[in-house]
Amino acid sequence: MSAESAFIAALQALATHPAARGLADDCAVLEVGGETLILTHDMMVEGVHWLAGQDPADVAWKLVAVNLSDLAAKGAEPRGVLLGYTLAANNARFAEGIGQALAHFDVPLLGGDTVGGGGGAQAIGLTALGRATHRPVPSRSGAQVGDGVWLTGPLGGAMLGFEALRDGAGADTAAFRRPVPRLAEGRALAPLVTAIMDVSDGLLLDASRMALASGVTIALDADAIPLAPALPPERCRDAFRWGDDYELLFTLPLAIAPPAPAFRIGTVIARGADPVLLDGCAPLGQLGYEHT
Amino acid sequence: MSAESAFIAALQALATHPAARGLADDCAVLEVGGETLILTHDMMVEGVHWLAGQDPADVAWKLVAVNLSDLAAKGAEPRGVLLGYTLAANNARFAEGIGQALAHFDVPLLGGDTVGGGGGAQAIGLTALGRATHRPVPSRSGAQVGDGVWLTGPLGGAMLGFEALRDGAGADTAAFRRPVPRLAEGRALAPLVTAIMDVSDGLLLDASRMALASGVTIALDADAIPLAPALPPERCRDAFRWGDDYELLFTLPLAIAPPAPAFRIGTVIARGADPVLLDGCAPLGQLGYEHT
Repeated sequence: MSAESAFIAALQALATHPAARGLADDCAVLEVGGETLILTHDMMVEGVHWLAGQDPADVAWKLVAVNLSDLAAKGAEPRGVLLGYTLAANNARFAEGIGQALAHFDVPLLGGDTVGGGGGAQAIGLTALGRATHRPVPSRSGAQVGDGVWLTGPLGGAMLGFEALRDGAGADTAAFRRPVPRLAEGRALAPLVTAIMDVSDGLLLDASRMALASGVTIALDADAIPLAPALPPERCRDAFRWGDDYELLFTLPLAIAPPAPAFRIGTVIARGADPVLLDGCAPLGQLGYEHT
Repeated sequence: MSAESAFIAALQALATHPAARGLADDCAVLEVGGETLILTHDMMVEGVHWLAGQDPADVAWKLVAVNLSDLAAKGAEPRGVLLGYTLAANNARFAEGIGQALAHFDVPLLGGDTVGGGGGAQAIGLTALGRATHRPVPSRSGAQVGDGVWLTGPLGGAMLGFEALRDGAGADTAAFRRPVPRLAEGRALAPLVTAIMDVSDGLLLDASRMALASGVTIALDADAIPLAPALPPERCRDAFRWGDDYELLFTLPLAIAPPAPAFRIGTVIARGADPVLLDGCAPLGQLGYEHT
């Protein structure tokens, strides 16, 4: 068991409140005053979640976007964010990026904390809260045998953007630097889906998590998975394992057409030996990004 | 202007939503359904907020306590926390401390994020949310000329505890390691106070912040300020400048007796040249803990 898995297991033993959803979903779901509040907190660390030397405005944008993507996966309307920030070299540029992202997504900054860094890699966090637009709030765990499996957009753009940025190549890096959470799509999908989550750690890994949570197997059709136009065909297996595109993965009864642009990429089948199949076979190797 | 002040000023320009209270209060105050939600996020960094080598269970306790102390200053009833954690050497012991604190204060763990550290000092964050038990929710900014100034308990215990821990002395260190937020006192005080905040950065500094927010001067009587029994008399000036005791500082009209144990330490007077006076004089030197 990795250090992260052991720590999360210890926290899961504490998280017995139903709002925590066993720490197995993208967000907490808390009833407050007749509303259902959706809460998420994601951290990012220099050298782990972004390249040292990246533009702090892009880092700030991404911190906002990854948290809003968790809200999108619940069909939530964002109500605000709280920022946890450790001071670094170019704080002004980071604040600019926060302002750009919050203005773009029309989300207020509500509060947070700024602290002196202790040296070493910078660590930052953001809490986003939103209001559920549909109840019950969808989860990862409701996929039903026979459902279609869908994805809101192509994979691989963030991977290519990361590689171009890392290598100083001239290619477009926006998909990695400035992801756009699928907020409108999430709201449209929430009333209809049987299960939904955002793809943040790689399609194969996240699909396997949805399958395990739902007690099913997700059978994917490789040819049907949409890919970024610039992706060389031989890189598609990598793109299936790369996160950071922040598309929504969801399951729908076959009779229902998705109310937002999406690609049908597979079918939910009865739980077999493997949680996810790609063209009928268990995918080999690592399925996505896992902390060690 | 320090790096922190400049960054916070940049964020304040963004935080125009009334729930943010201009980032000048302890918490955000957000209307949700028929409830008023109180939100806070505090970070802690190894070597800045705790001594390298401290018991991770104590660090975890303190992270919970400092956030709940912000809720206490709003008279809020805690509803839950989200933890942002970077993995370090002894994660199991940290999880134990989180469990101890949440059980002690009867607050559920709702969610959060665990990430691999990037090397260097560990940084952790916690978001706490609570329900306002009294509306309007008190702030720092309502102190009125003629009010009495009160403190819920003695200062200096955390300072002595820190020094004993740092120096490996045998003295009691619990006040530094395991502070107890004044949640019940905050709920009792919220309907009555004109202004309230927790003392986290030092009495003189926090009183000056309250005075500036309220447009008044706070005149303190040094002899009336309660001190930890173990504090040597010559250290009282240090204790006035040391945070981490997490007592509540509040102002009350003279006709009202505090509904919780508290010490009358001064009087609100008309705004003079200095926001805070100690025995009639402006205190010399640094007033408390400020990030650089």
